[in-house]
Amino acid sequence: MIKTIQLSPTRQGLHEFTSQIARILKESQLQEGLCTLFVKHTSCSLTIQENADPSARHDLENWLNRLVSENDPLYTHIFEGADDMPSHIKAALTATSLSIPFINCQLCLGTWQGVFLWEHRHHVSSRSIIVHLGD
Amino acid sequence: MIKTIQLSPTRQGLHEFTSQIARILKESQLQEGLCTLFVKHTSCSLTIQENADPSARHDLENWLNRLVSENDPLYTHIFEGADDMPSHIKAALTATSLSIPFINCQLCLGTWQGVFLWEHRHHVSSRSIIVHLGD
Amino acid sequence: MIKTIQLSPTRQGLHEFTSQIARILKESQLQEGLCTLFVKHTSCSLTIQENADPSARHDLENWLNRLVSENDPLYTHIFEGADDMPSHIKAALTATSLSIPFINCQLCLGTWQGVFLWEHRHHVSSRSIIVHLGD
Repeated sequence: MIKTIQLSPTRQGLHEFTSQIARILKESQLQEGLCTLFVKHTSCSLTIQENADPSARHDLENWLNRLVSENDPLYTHIFEGADDMPSHIKAALTATSLSIPFINCQLCLGTWQGVFLWEHRHHVSSRSIIVHLGD
Repeated sequence: MIKTIQLSPTRQGLHEFTSQIARILKESQLQEGLCTLFVKHTSCSLTIQENADPSARHDLENWLNRLVSENDPLYTHIFEGADDMPSHIKAALTATSLSIPFINCQLCLGTWQGVFLWEHRHHVSSRSIIVHLGD
Repeated sequence: MIKTIQLSPTRQGLHEFTSQIARILKESQLQEGLCTLFVKHTSCSLTIQENADPSARHDLENWLNRLVSENDPLYTHIFEGADDMPSHIKAALTATSLSIPFINCQLCLGTWQGVFLWEHRHHVSSRSIIVHLGD
C-alpha cells in the first residue's frame, strides 16, 4: 500500500510529522510490517530524532548550518540562491529514505523518537513524502 | 517477521553484530527477501563498514569525534552530559535504518562488510535493534 | 525478486544509474511495491541527487573531498592508499542502502531526482549493487 503525505511549506529546520504517518498506518488496518518513507526532493531530507526537547533540534540545525555554510567560495552551482547548494549537501549527509517496522498497527519507535522532515531551504513550496506499507 | 536484538551496554565506538542478525535469519528459515534493521535510539546509529582491519573503525571513530566535538559553545542542549548533543548529531549524519537483501538464507553482504552498532555515548544502558524480515 | 547491477569501474565522483534500475523494474512487470538498493562495498555509496545540472554534483564532490581530506595525520589505516580511509568515512556519512517506492511499474522519484553510485576511490574494479523488488 502506497500513500502520499503532503507537507505545507515551512521554514528551514526540523518539522515532526510522526502523527501523519501513524494516521495512515491506522487507516491501513495492517497489523505488522514495515513502513518506508521516501522524500521526493533533493533539498530536504528525513531524520529520526529526539522529539522531547526542542533545544536538541535547534542545536542540530545550527551545527549543520555551520558545517555546510552558505556562500562558500567552493560552490559553482549558485544560480538557484545561496541556500540551494547547501541544501543538496545536507540532503546527501542525511536520509532520503527511512524504514520503520510496525507491530499491532503501531510504529516501533523508541520512547524519544520522532520522524522529521528536515527542510534545508528558506522558502519552498510544499513537500511530498511517499509512504509504503508492506508486510 | 519481526524480532528484537538487545545489545549489552558498550563503550563509545563501532560494535559488530552481524552474527546475531545471521542467527535470526537462519532461525526464520526464509530463503530470499529483505532484512531491515531499525535502531530505537537517537544517540547511537547503524553502519555497514569494513570488518577486517580494526584500524579503519578506529580512524572512523576518531574522525567523527573530531568533526562533532564535545563542549562546542554552539550547544544549548547540554543538561544530559557533554556527549549527548554530539550523539544526536552523529546519529543524524549516519543511519537509523538499514536494509540488506538475503539469498539462500544468507545476507548479501560484500566480502569485507560487517553490520555495526555505532555507540555515540560514553555510558549507556542496553540498545534495542528491531529486525524485520520480509519476502 | 533480487537482481544485481554490475557497474563498470569509474573515476571518483557521482555516477547515475537510474535507467538500469528502471529496466530491471520494467522486466519484473511488478506494478506497485518497494525497490531497495544495497551496495556491497565500504568505499563507495549510494545517493539520490539532482540529475539536471552537473554543477551540483561537482560541488557536492568537491565539498565532501574538502571535509574528508586525504593524508589526514589522524589516519592510521593507510596501507591501502591515501584514498582508502577517506572512502570509508564518506561511505559512513552517506547511504549503503536506499528504498524507493514504485507505482505503475515506475520509480516514484521526484522530477529532479536521479539515483547515483558515489565512487569514493580513484581506481577501483567494478561495483555490485543488489536490487530487491518487493510488493
